[in-house]
Amino acid sequence: MSSTRVVAGIGDDCAVLRIPPEHEVLVTTDFSLEGVHFRREWHPAEVVGHRCLTRGLSDIAAMGGEPVAVFLSLALPARISQSWVDGFFNGLLGLAGNFKVALAGGDIAQSPQMILADIMVLGSLPKGTAILRSGAKPGDRIYVTGELGGSAATLEMLRNTCKKLREQDFPQYFHPAPRIEVGTYLRQHGLPSAMIDISDGLSTDLAHLCEESGVGAELHADLIPRARIGRDPRTQVDLKDALHGGDDYELLFTAPAKKRIPPSIAGVPVACVGVMTRGNRIFLRSDGKSRRQLKPGGWQHFSR
Amino acid sequence: MSSTRVVAGIGDDCAVLRIPPEHEVLVTTDFSLEGVHFRREWHPAEVVGHRCLTRGLSDIAAMGGEPVAVFLSLALPARISQSWVDGFFNGLLGLAGNFKVALAGGDIAQSPQMILADIMVLGSLPKGTAILRSGAKPGDRIYVTGELGGSAATLEMLRNTCKKLREQDFPQYFHPAPRIEVGTYLRQHGLPSAMIDISDGLSTDLAHLCEESGVGAELHADLIPRARIGRDPRTQVDLKDALHGGDDYELLFTAPAKKRIPPSIAGVPVACVGVMTRGNRIFLRSDGKSRRQLKPGGWQHFSR
Repeated sequence: MSSTRVVAGIGDDCAVLRIPPEHEVLVTTDFSLEGVHFRREWHPAEVVGHRCLTRGLSDIAAMGGEPVAVFLSLALPARISQSWVDGFFNGLLGLAGNFKVALAGGDIAQSPQMILADIMVLGSLPKGTAILRSGAKPGDRIYVTGELGGSAATLEMLRNTCKKLREQDFPQYFHPAPRIEVGTYLRQHGLPSAMIDISDGLSTDLAHLCEESGVGAELHADLIPRARIGRDPRTQVDLKDALHGGDDYELLFTAPAKKRIPPSIAGVPVACVGVMTRGNRIFLRSDGKSRRQLKPGGWQHFSR
Repeated sequence: MSSTRVVAGIGDDCAVLRIPPEHEVLVTTDFSLEGVHFRREWHPAEVVGHRCLTRGLSDIAAMGGEPVAVFLSLALPARISQSWVDGFFNGLLGLAGNFKVALAGGDIAQSPQMILADIMVLGSLPKGTAILRSGAKPGDRIYVTGELGGSAATLEMLRNTCKKLREQDFPQYFHPAPRIEVGTYLRQHGLPSAMIDISDGLSTDLAHLCEESGVGAELHADLIPRARIGRDPRTQVDLKDALHGGDDYELLFTAPAKKRIPPSIAGVPVACVGVMTRGNRIFLRSDGKSRRQLKPGGWQHFSR
């Protein structure tokens, strides 16, 4: 996580990056589009910049990698205010600074109407240690970090209220923390058999992991950590938000039953929520009820 | 230039790339926006895909690097035809195949009206051998590859004609060839002191190189290779197009006077067009005329 690996940044035809010996390079790209991933009336510029980079850093975390450099392509309408642009960069660079990641290049262009950001994050890890989606086996336990559904529930509140929400009451929605330290810890201790970040919702991302691994899964509804949001810490989100809501940027991973997983890593709680199974279907079991098949919730940002 | 360096591509949270030992990583990103870099009525989809990737590969060439992998973020209007999308990928993947570069990831999103592509190319070269813009010294000779001004002159024809131009009559405009082999040869033989690609026009890109190197330059108008375009091979473009026209994707480099530069590299002609000087200004000398100061032409794609 050292910015000294950027040998040459902005100001030449390419950025030049030095990767540690015997390391592999991780690359991820993510769009953040106005009207799809954010709205100017709901999300302050600084929040848009922060969340834009979170999307990329969360993908690096999901491989167990460490971020090295960020590249930003930004298309802006001609009439955007300088204070919006300053806010956006404050949010993005503030988060980048937390992980000592340099903004090493990118492109700026004019867009006819909407704001469009494309973030590329480059990371690295020792050769052969990337945690893929494809390594889960039947019998492996399923774990998630943090709490789920908070972003979907907050978005629902934004949709249904005229007044602005206080950012400090919904920190995980407005300033989601990419789980870099958790991913690094898990990789260094050789714990996960497979990992993915929960950006599209637990049901959808678990389905991706099952598909890549060629296995099924059984979740226990009562074990899924439901987010507590707003000013009253007792208010838990509905199970459906925890199952299907996206934009949480927590990690979902599997590990063999014999591996001991700490209940908390780098200050983030880790919960066992189910078990991988043979087959290719995902079931949800609840105490006192028969199990039912769980279909991917199809989180579609604002278009659902 | 081997695609085997992509350990994991599309289908996980990140692509995983293996860089040769003792190599550095090059990264460049470039927008290709409808209405700014292309127009659907002038440029067939396949040409848009080809030129989109050319922008990135040309930046890798300008460092002396070899391309490793391509990442594409593509925002498309809902009503785009499948044949346009197929054509775009045919153009992009065809050029990628020429250099054995894999499309290793990216993102797809819906755009409200215009097509927007962001291309990221990752390359590599041995540690410490990247050819920067900042190494030119007074007395160094200035060289350009190929012929200049062809794209600007072709664009002028597109602007002034109702009928379509035949792609085969304007190959360098519709299918520009990134100068990867030339850049690699120059780097391997330790010839250039500085290098940049001519994407914004000779006057503008030479000004960038002068600024980064802290030197001035003197160009000789009669030495600048002017493009021959269209069906009559004797038709040369105007000097102003060769001086200021962008989108040619040729290389501009400097080398000490004592270095012998071949007149042709990998089948591409190389011409000496001037000399670097003390100071920070650029002058243009013509036979039989007094020299005059040359200001950057300010190539602005379609907005000039």
